[in-house]
Amino acid sequence: MKYTDMTAAQLREEYAALKEKFESIKAMGLTLDMSRGKPESSQAALSEGLLTVLTKREELVTESGLDTANYGTPDGIPEAKALVAEIVGVKPSMVNLWNNASLEIMYSLISFGYCFGLAGCEPWSKQTGLKFLCPVPGYDRHFAITEQFGFEMINIPLGEDGPDMDMVEAYVRDPAVKGIWCVPLYSNPGGICYSDETVRRFAALKPAAPDFRVYWDNAYMVHHLYPEAPAKLLNIFDLLSASGNENLVYEFFSTSKITFAGDGISAVIASEANLAELKKRAGFMTVGFDKVNQLRHVLFLKSKENLEAHMARHAAILRPKFEAVLNTLEEELGSLGIASWTKPRGGYFISLDTLPGCAKRTVALCKEAGVVLTGAGATYPYKKDPNDTNIRIAPTYPSPENLAKACQVLTVCLRLAAAEKLSENF
Amino acid sequence: MKYTDMTAAQLREEYAALKEKFESIKAMGLTLDMSRGKPESSQAALSEGLLTVLTKREELVTESGLDTANYGTPDGIPEAKALVAEIVGVKPSMVNLWNNASLEIMYSLISFGYCFGLAGCEPWSKQTGLKFLCPVPGYDRHFAITEQFGFEMINIPLGEDGPDMDMVEAYVRDPAVKGIWCVPLYSNPGGICYSDETVRRFAALKPAAPDFRVYWDNAYMVHHLYPEAPAKLLNIFDLLSASGNENLVYEFFSTSKITFAGDGISAVIASEANLAELKKRAGFMTVGFDKVNQLRHVLFLKSKENLEAHMARHAAILRPKFEAVLNTLEEELGSLGIASWTKPRGGYFISLDTLPGCAKRTVALCKEAGVVLTGAGATYPYKKDPNDTNIRIAPTYPSPENLAKACQVLTVCLRLAAAEKLSENF
Repeated sequence: MKYTDMTAAQLREEYAALKEKFESIKAMGLTLDMSRGKPESSQAALSEGLLTVLTKREELVTESGLDTANYGTPDGIPEAKALVAEIVGVKPSMVNLWNNASLEIMYSLISFGYCFGLAGCEPWSKQTGLKFLCPVPGYDRHFAITEQFGFEMINIPLGEDGPDMDMVEAYVRDPAVKGIWCVPLYSNPGGICYSDETVRRFAALKPAAPDFRVYWDNAYMVHHLYPEAPAKLLNIFDLLSASGNENLVYEFFSTSKITFAGDGISAVIASEANLAELKKRAGFMTVGFDKVNQLRHVLFLKSKENLEAHMARHAAILRPKFEAVLNTLEEELGSLGIASWTKPRGGYFISLDTLPGCAKRTVALCKEAGVVLTGAGATYPYKKDPNDTNIRIAPTYPSPENLAKACQVLTVCLRLAAAEKLSENF
Repeated sequence: MKYTDMTAAQLREEYAALKEKFESIKAMGLTLDMSRGKPESSQAALSEGLLTVLTKREELVTESGLDTANYGTPDGIPEAKALVAEIVGVKPSMVNLWNNASLEIMYSLISFGYCFGLAGCEPWSKQTGLKFLCPVPGYDRHFAITEQFGFEMINIPLGEDGPDMDMVEAYVRDPAVKGIWCVPLYSNPGGICYSDETVRRFAALKPAAPDFRVYWDNAYMVHHLYPEAPAKLLNIFDLLSASGNENLVYEFFSTSKITFAGDGISAVIASEANLAELKKRAGFMTVGFDKVNQLRHVLFLKSKENLEAHMARHAAILRPKFEAVLNTLEEELGSLGIASWTKPRGGYFISLDTLPGCAKRTVALCKEAGVVLTGAGATYPYKKDPNDTNIRIAPTYPSPENLAKACQVLTVCLRLAAAEKLSENF
C-alpha cells in the first residue's frame, strides 16, 4: 500500500513497526559501508598480469628506441597514445597521457584557466562573476574543483537523455559561463547515458565565451554491466568539426577502474590546438609522466578488443551486486510510492530519490544503524540538494553479504524517514 | 701562456690556429649533446630489480592490510613514508609521497599560494609586487615556475658555502619576498654544498611574510660521486624548532635519479601543519598518488643503508665522466686565464665560467660545431646571465667517447670566443 494513501492510524502503525525493526537493527551493531565508488578487492586480481609484462631493463626501451626509464616525452609514449586513441576513436595526435588520475588533468585545466587564461583569454582570476554548469545529480569531486576556484555553479537537471539542453544552450550565451561538467556515459550517480540528440546539441553549442569548454569525463566509457548490450554514446569528436567547434571539448579517460584503482594511467583527448596549450602549461609542472606505467598498460591491455574482454570480467563481478541492490529496492520499496531510483546498465553507482526532505534523514538513520552512505547532498554543487531527495548508492565495494544487509537497512531507514515526514501532515 | 698576457700579434696567431681547428671540427659533422641532466642508459639497469619485486595481486596488500591497488591514502603508504623519513632523517609524519616528479610538488605549492594563499594569507594573485629569491647560477625549471606566476626574481650570488646569506637575511625583511629556491647539496649546476653556517642561518631566518617559505630541493642528497667521502649537509629540520621556525621549510626528495628517471616516486618533507595544508589543497586535485609504485620502491630500496650501496653503483658509472670533463678542462684551459669551473663531488652538473661576455658565443660556436650545450643564460632567472659567463655542463648522459669529443670541442670554442673577445681590446 502506498504511504500516501495511508490514514493517520495506518501510518502510525507502520511507523511503530519500522521503529521496532530499526531498533533491532541498531542492536546488531553493524559497521557497513556503501559510500565508496571503489572496485572490490577481487577486481584487482583481473589485472595481476600488469605486474609481469615488464621484468627486464631492456624491455623498457620501446621498438622505436624510446627509453621509458629516462626523462622526457611529456605527451606520453606513442604506443599508449595509439591504444587510447583506438579505444576512444580519435587520432593519436589528439591524446596526451598523464599520471594516475584523470581528476588531476581536469583540476589542472581549471587551474591553468584561473592562473593564466585559456585560449588567450584573460585569466579567470582577473574576471568576476564566473559561472560553471553542473548537471545534477553529479560527481562531487567535479563540483569541488569549480567551487574552490570560486565559480558560481548552476544546477542543470539531468533527465533520461542527459542534461536539459534547452537550459545549457541558453546559459552558454552568457560569456561568464566557462564550462560544463559532463559524465556522458553511465553518469555518476544516475547511470544516465546521453542520447544521440543530446551529444549532437553539445557538439553544436555556440558559447559566447571563447574560453568555454565542455569537460567530457568519459570515466565509464568501457564500464558496461551488460557487455552484450552496451549503451552507445556518439563520439563527440566526430561531430565537432561539422559545427566548427574543434576546440570545444576536453574528454577524459582513465584506467583506474580497468586495472588498479589509483595506479593506472589517465588521458586527455582534445584538439591539437588545445593539447598544445595544455602541454605548454604542464611543461612548467613536470618533465613528463610515468612512462613505464604507460608501457605496462600498453602491453597488458593490448587492444580495444582485449580491453573489452577484460571489462566483461569486471562486469561479471559487479552485475550481481547492482542487481541485488535493485531487487531489494524493488521488493522493499516498489509498491510504497516513497522512492524512485535509476537502473544503470554500467558505471559505479545507483541514484536513489526519496520523498522531498527525506534524504538527509535517511542517511542519518542509516549511520545510526551502522551503515555509511555518501552524505546526502554530495551529488549537488555546494552539497546542497534543493529538495533533499538524492542518495548515491555505491554497490561495488562491499561483499555481496554486506551489500544485502546494508540494502535492507537502507530500505528500513528510508521507510522510517518517509513515515516521519508524512506524519507531519496529520 | 695566459691569454690576457698575450700581445696583439700573439692573440692573432692563437686565434688563427683555433679558427683552423674549429673549421676542421665542423667538417667532422659531429652531433653530440652535453645539455641534458639525464642518467645514462646503463644506470637504469641498476634498478632492474624494481620490475620484479611485485608480481602477484596479493603482494599489493601491505602487512597492515592496506590495498595499494585501490583508491585512497593520499599521504602515501606508511612503509614509503617510513623509508623516506629514514633517508632524510625526520619523523614519518613529516613526509608525504606524491607521484613521479618532485617538480610537480614545488609547482603545486606555488600554484596553491597563488590561487588560495599559503598559511592563511591573501592569495598571491591578489597581492602585487611579489618577489622570489633565486641563488645563481641555479636550476632553470625552478626559475621558470616563479617567472610564470609573475614573481620578480632576485639574483642571490652562490659562493662556495652557499647563497650570500647577508643578502638573503636583508631581503626577507621585505614582506613582498615569498620564498627562495635552494638546492643545498651539490647544487645545479655548480655542485655547491651549503656549509653548516649557511644552513644555520637559513634555519634562523626571520622573514617578514608569514607565507615566506624556503623551497629546499634536496634533489642530490644521496648522489655522491665519492661515497667514501660524501659531503655533509646539516639536517635543517633539526635546527628549525630551536628558532621557532617549524613551518619555514619544504624539503623535496625524488627517486628519479635513484631508480628510473621520470618513473620514480617523490616526496615533500615539512611540518605537520604545512603538510596538513598541502594535503587539503591537493585533495581537490587527486584521490591519491600511485601507491603500487611506492610499494615497489619500498621493497626494492629497502633501507637507507641499501640505498647508499645502490647509489655507490651509480657513482661508479658517473665519477669517471666527471673526472674526464674536469681533466680536459684543466689540460686545455688550466693555464690560459680565460675560464674557471667548479669541481663537484656529487650531483649531475659542472658549472663553467668564461670571460665576461663569452658564454653565449661559446655555446653558439659549439652548436655550429655539432655540440649541443644548455643554452647560455639558462642558469639565471629570465635566462639573463648579467655577465654572460655561465655554462652548465651535463656530463652524465653521453657515452665516455662522445663526452671526450664534446669536451674537446667545448674547449676549442671557449678559447676561440675568448680570443675574439680579447681582440676587441686591441
